[in-house]
Amino acid sequence: MKTINGTIASPKGFYADGFHSGLKRKRKDIGWIYSEYPAQAAGVFTTNAVQAAPIQVTKQALKSDYLQAIIVNSGNANACTGKNGLLHAQEMQQMAAQKLGVSSGSVAVASTGVIGQELPMTTIKKGIFGLNKTEGTPGHFHEAILTTDTRTKEIVVMSEIDGEMVTMAGVAKGSGMIHPNMATMLAFITTDAAIKNQLLQETLKHITDQTFNQITVDGDTSTNDMVLVMANGAAGNPFIQKESEGYQEFTAMLRVVMEELAKMIAQDGEGATKLIEAAVTHAKDQLTARMIAKKIVGSSLVKTAMFGADPNWGRIICAIGYADPSIDPEKVTISIGGLPVLINSQPQSFDEMKMREILVQDKIMILVDLQDGTKTGTAWGCDLTYKYVEINALYHT
Amino acid sequence: MKTINGTIASPKGFYADGFHSGLKRKRKDIGWIYSEYPAQAAGVFTTNAVQAAPIQVTKQALKSDYLQAIIVNSGNANACTGKNGLLHAQEMQQMAAQKLGVSSGSVAVASTGVIGQELPMTTIKKGIFGLNKTEGTPGHFHEAILTTDTRTKEIVVMSEIDGEMVTMAGVAKGSGMIHPNMATMLAFITTDAAIKNQLLQETLKHITDQTFNQITVDGDTSTNDMVLVMANGAAGNPFIQKESEGYQEFTAMLRVVMEELAKMIAQDGEGATKLIEAAVTHAKDQLTARMIAKKIVGSSLVKTAMFGADPNWGRIICAIGYADPSIDPEKVTISIGGLPVLINSQPQSFDEMKMREILVQDKIMILVDLQDGTKTGTAWGCDLTYKYVEINALYHT
Repeated sequence: MKTINGTIASPKGFYADGFHSGLKRKRKDIGWIYSEYPAQAAGVFTTNAVQAAPIQVTKQALKSDYLQAIIVNSGNANACTGKNGLLHAQEMQQMAAQKLGVSSGSVAVASTGVIGQELPMTTIKKGIFGLNKTEGTPGHFHEAILTTDTRTKEIVVMSEIDGEMVTMAGVAKGSGMIHPNMATMLAFITTDAAIKNQLLQETLKHITDQTFNQITVDGDTSTNDMVLVMANGAAGNPFIQKESEGYQEFTAMLRVVMEELAKMIAQDGEGATKLIEAAVTHAKDQLTARMIAKKIVGSSLVKTAMFGADPNWGRIICAIGYADPSIDPEKVTISIGGLPVLINSQPQSFDEMKMREILVQDKIMILVDLQDGTKTGTAWGCDLTYKYVEINALYHT
Repeated sequence: MKTINGTIASPKGFYADGFHSGLKRKRKDIGWIYSEYPAQAAGVFTTNAVQAAPIQVTKQALKSDYLQAIIVNSGNANACTGKNGLLHAQEMQQMAAQKLGVSSGSVAVASTGVIGQELPMTTIKKGIFGLNKTEGTPGHFHEAILTTDTRTKEIVVMSEIDGEMVTMAGVAKGSGMIHPNMATMLAFITTDAAIKNQLLQETLKHITDQTFNQITVDGDTSTNDMVLVMANGAAGNPFIQKESEGYQEFTAMLRVVMEELAKMIAQDGEGATKLIEAAVTHAKDQLTARMIAKKIVGSSLVKTAMFGADPNWGRIICAIGYADPSIDPEKVTISIGGLPVLINSQPQSFDEMKMREILVQDKIMILVDLQDGTKTGTAWGCDLTYKYVEINALYHT
């Protein structure tokens, strides 16, 4: 497998475009992905009881045999908008289908932005009208889905599966209200591999638990989280069978794409200056390992300490202790950026200059050894900064 | 029942003092409470797997028949300090017992401050030596237990129980690492009422769940949380019996003391400019109501919105939705400071000037009606500000 430069339209048979319709003041705010072949598809969604209208429409679309397009707007989440919201999401789906010449049931819809305001449908219509079907600029799609993100997030990988070169691309947006549970903010993955809906769904769910569900920016699970995968089979490989070598490779590709996107979302968390990775090893089970890792990167006190470049392991062990009251604190070992700070619960002295160098990097690795089993879990987050407070105190409704 | 001005030593037979020993640079850092009569006692403690040494010593002391004193230091949490930490906590207990002329098993120990540093025992000894037994200044105790608090927190109430005037006083410290679970940061309650250990413990636990366990500042559950109550019987009432009228009055007093202290801790959360109260009504059960209320006041996005004086109800309903994915969003009604912003999930227009006036107050009330049952739950938190980030990024270990 290798990573290449590319876009969400790098896999064969995919096209994408983005456009400024006026939902946002200046930046692009509407985009689509189109596959010239019907694509097998899978999706995972927010577990929030409050589900935005596009989530409901897209869940319905996934029940059909295939997807052929995804239409996305930013600037307005179309959430908590009642019956009108649902009508608007359906209208968006129909307009896109009509312009692309596909059935409306094969179009997924996603929205992100402010909660509780009705979608201005004239603007949406103008946006869909402005999008290109096969002559668009795929990178504009990457821009069109952003909200408070400071950069686009994409990754493209290639590998051989069952004798054919397969390409897989992913694009995501994140920044705030990021504490996914069963899904994340918006992420779209395209591939020209051939794999059937059911196996794709099962694989997506499994990898989501290890990647998107293991990031946190602010502990808030959004009403609009969605990850969609489209696999249009244009690579020409036979349908991937479970347990096969090709499946292993496909899973590896999907894992790289999803893990990298997840890390990009955490690193570009609102106001963040650095990515924090917590890896918990030798836990009694995988869920415990993941949960402890997520509590560490979710702790406001750990997040502010990392912002302040302070190796405050007291806050780390405190987070471990409340994450799982059944752990044995006497066995806990913690290192930061490879430097041990606590071994078997005994504080260690360390080279302060070296620690300082580690803590001013833009990626910080916290490693925890529980000495209580064989399982491992990793989570990603970011530091908590003045900028986070500024962004969210000044973002007025 | 009436609230009076007073101190932790207002109930008959109690004395208290505080002193600057040198654990902190300038402010008072050690204090004690002493009862001339053996007191029935009860305590609740952190559920963090990592329990500071003084927690272990005090749990042991509570197994004896009575308590006669509490010795407390700030500036150093004596947590994650291994075997030496335990020896130091025991030594602190013995020194205090000796100077007060009581048995060491009747002395509770509490510490708060930095995690992972050994207690400087010479300084502690100097501190205990400097404290007065019966001629101290009780208000100095209130000061001696503070860390990043900006003010002392105390309340004194009086009422008649079974024909005798009973006084109850409480003092607490909070500010950071506040997300109690089964207990809180340090809180000490004294009363001259007569009530036996077991009933006192049961009552304390019950009211803790509705008060201290319902506040959050930063979502981090400390290693040192502790609430202790001492009841020395000096008021002369017969031992309070469960289900009696006197018990109702005692419970009411304890609830007022604990709820007021809990709110003072939330309001004085690190960097906070305002207290946020969330009350959830018509929930299907009490636990759900409390949990949703706590998620609302714990949401970083709600907290920053309140700091920014933004009536962002989208973030409130989002928090409700992830707190309990089984609620019916169509039935949710939300008001802020008495102004309805959402009725049966329909956004309401409101007087923006009036809302602005509400949101710049130092107490903001969020009321949620789930229309799904009869139970109610309340939680208290504070806003998330630049100052919180500053305090915790600059607080170096």
